[in-house]
Amino acid sequence: MNVLIVYAHPEPASFNAAMCTRARDALTHAGHKVVVSDLYGEGFNPVAGRHDFLSVADGQVFHYQTEQAHAARHGTYAPDIAREQARVADADLLILQFPLWWGGVPAILKGWGERVFSYGFGYADGLRFQTGVFRGRRAMVSMTSGGTTARFGEGAVYGELKRQVLWQIQHLGLEYMGYELEPPFVAYAAPRTDDAGRAAYLDELEQRVLAAAAKPVDRSLGIAKPLDLVPDGAWKQQR
Amino acid sequence: MNVLIVYAHPEPASFNAAMCTRARDALTHAGHKVVVSDLYGEGFNPVAGRHDFLSVADGQVFHYQTEQAHAARHGTYAPDIAREQARVADADLLILQFPLWWGGVPAILKGWGERVFSYGFGYADGLRFQTGVFRGRRAMVSMTSGGTTARFGEGAVYGELKRQVLWQIQHLGLEYMGYELEPPFVAYAAPRTDDAGRAAYLDELEQRVLAAAAKPVDRSLGIAKPLDLVPDGAWKQQR
Repeated sequence: MNVLIVYAHPEPASFNAAMCTRARDALTHAGHKVVVSDLYGEGFNPVAGRHDFLSVADGQVFHYQTEQAHAARHGTYAPDIAREQARVADADLLILQFPLWWGGVPAILKGWGERVFSYGFGYADGLRFQTGVFRGRRAMVSMTSGGTTARFGEGAVYGELKRQVLWQIQHLGLEYMGYELEPPFVAYAAPRTDDAGRAAYLDELEQRVLAAAAKPVDRSLGIAKPLDLVPDGAWKQQR
Repeated sequence: MNVLIVYAHPEPASFNAAMCTRARDALTHAGHKVVVSDLYGEGFNPVAGRHDFLSVADGQVFHYQTEQAHAARHGTYAPDIAREQARVADADLLILQFPLWWGGVPAILKGWGERVFSYGFGYADGLRFQTGVFRGRRAMVSMTSGGTTARFGEGAVYGELKRQVLWQIQHLGLEYMGYELEPPFVAYAAPRTDDAGRAAYLDELEQRVLAAAAKPVDRSLGIAKPLDLVPDGAWKQQR
């Protein structure tokens, strides 16, 4: 199984880093091929813009999806995006490892999604959710939160995990692209968890990622080149 | 009324830009003081890191909240954050203007929130939601979406606006800081809306921001210096 871990934390001594390392090592030891996109370590730029492209479809007005579709047709994505898209295309299982900041993924990871899962690569008209490009593959959120379990849930102060807190990243992000979701793994109250608790979290995470990687995938369900299904110029000008 | 519009779109000819301009002009004409944080125009860096600070609390391990608290105590935020925090501190009404990307705010705006609403400025232990730092002030989301109204709602493909799509930015972001929310303004199906429809959106937005700015605010409810209430060193090491 090909696994891509997208890891977003600035500190190599963080618990997020330990989680990333444990997942990578366990999967590698089990015989899977693992690639880690270390967004901070690689200095990934999360800001969408003309620097995403080596080409220009419209030099007057910058319309993001127009430029994305143009680059997808002509193979003219900037090297950092092309590299990440190749990693995504190769991955049967995608794992996002991050701390919950301001109730969501860190900006560096949000921008990774915006730039990499572009129109023409990650989705296109009519290719979303049940018809998504990455159908047949799996994705899993693995995160830390400063909040305790009591803060999450229907009616709790942070809200229900699946339908509220992670709705954006899981449903409007990963499921939008067609991925089948693994249940999220959450290390709650990470700052107030002692060494034994952290060791238990890491052991549990290891079992979770090994189980996820053992499930079948079927790449034939997905769409390798979504733009082939969309007539040239069919995308809309959104200004 | 002091109004801060945080605007996040890369294209000055976009409909988002037109919305920002209309809100700014209408509020200014009505006698309010309006400041626009043009995140793309000002080249705002959304990536949290050591560059956020002129000071170092711990040179070995980078723990974000520790460094934020240290900078808040010593007035050592980097100039871009200090500038944005001064704008936020001055604003009675905060308006976020953005396109919905990947189901959420663009990364450049997500990172603005993470870096500017820092521990010690935007919140602290025990100062959240009903005890939030910005209680008595108002905030409003104004956004475009490629989706039609039919895609939003309970059971619809994108989900319910308040409790799902905008849960992260509105509840876990703005309400977390204590802001009272105005209902969000959404320009649905923006790419497929003709000139008359867009003009109607702009007129409606004008009425909405003028009405929001006419409501009373009470800064005395908020906490000017949240760290004064927290003993020095009380923040937790989260690694």
